[in-house]
Amino acid sequence: MTVRVGDKLSSAPASLTETAPDKTVQFPTEGKIIIVGVPGAYTPPCSDHVPTYILAYDDLLKKGIDEIYVVGVNDQFVMNAWGKHLTQQHGGDLEKLTHIHFCADRSGEFVKSLGLDFDASGLLGNTRSKRFALVVKDGIVEDVRVENSPPELTLTMADEVLKSL
Amino acid sequence: MTVRVGDKLSSAPASLTETAPDKTVQFPTEGKIIIVGVPGAYTPPCSDHVPTYILAYDDLLKKGIDEIYVVGVNDQFVMNAWGKHLTQQHGGDLEKLTHIHFCADRSGEFVKSLGLDFDASGLLGNTRSKRFALVVKDGIVEDVRVENSPPELTLTMADEVLKSL
Repeated sequence: MTVRVGDKLSSAPASLTETAPDKTVQFPTEGKIIIVGVPGAYTPPCSDHVPTYILAYDDLLKKGIDEIYVVGVNDQFVMNAWGKHLTQQHGGDLEKLTHIHFCADRSGEFVKSLGLDFDASGLLGNTRSKRFALVVKDGIVEDVRVENSPPELTLTMADEVLKSL
Repeated sequence: MTVRVGDKLSSAPASLTETAPDKTVQFPTEGKIIIVGVPGAYTPPCSDHVPTYILAYDDLLKKGIDEIYVVGVNDQFVMNAWGKHLTQQHGGDLEKLTHIHFCADRSGEFVKSLGLDFDASGLLGNTRSKRFALVVKDGIVEDVRVENSPPELTLTMADEVLKSL
């Protein structure tokens, strides 16, 4: 079943990591976070999607967002390289953007737990994440946005999420 | 069963691609090629391994190698980005290295057909390619080199393969 507004966000599985394959993500239980799901690191739509969060970083923080988690069903080495590449491309420095996290859901366990996985084997070889954005406040899901098809870039873009905050 | 010297190299499966997810690799049936299998794009050992082939490119061609195929169980978008990144990092230009190919075995179908896959789910989330180098002449496997463990960089390095040519 797909995650819904009002659901409690479960703890991240041990396989959802940030920076290194053994560094499990710990979602804060207080404060406001955004979780952005993307189908594939280095794919053209995702490489247009994620920079909207890099560019809107200051505005999101001003609107009360504490942390931004970009999640893809890729391994941690790919997610690290991609995060660094995208921030550099947009004049940023990932080490200074301490509240944006490039997370590897290497086996898809996390997105499956949200009901937000899909079969991308024809293009990408395995199960991937739908394109989504969740806003979570104090551990409770407050907003769920899922694109109708993975390449679409409409309601999950940072500007659209910003409007709702 | 693992591929052996004297085996005929099968045609590449449709899911083994180069440059785009719908561009299936066509191995030449004449001439001499090297196929290099790597566990993961952007992992530190693979990012040390593959550049040895970029740096030895001219020497390999002088020794009669016609084409070099670098294969990873990653999708084509990741393999393209990684290939470009590695060649730039070593002062090269992938568009000029027309005989080196960064191939996506997105579902692992090709390396499974060679018996050269392994379970990397704990670190990378799925089945990956062992680290190997095959030399194939006129469609027949002439040399099979497989590292004892995936992070090892010994007998599959370009210089070691060069010595055997």
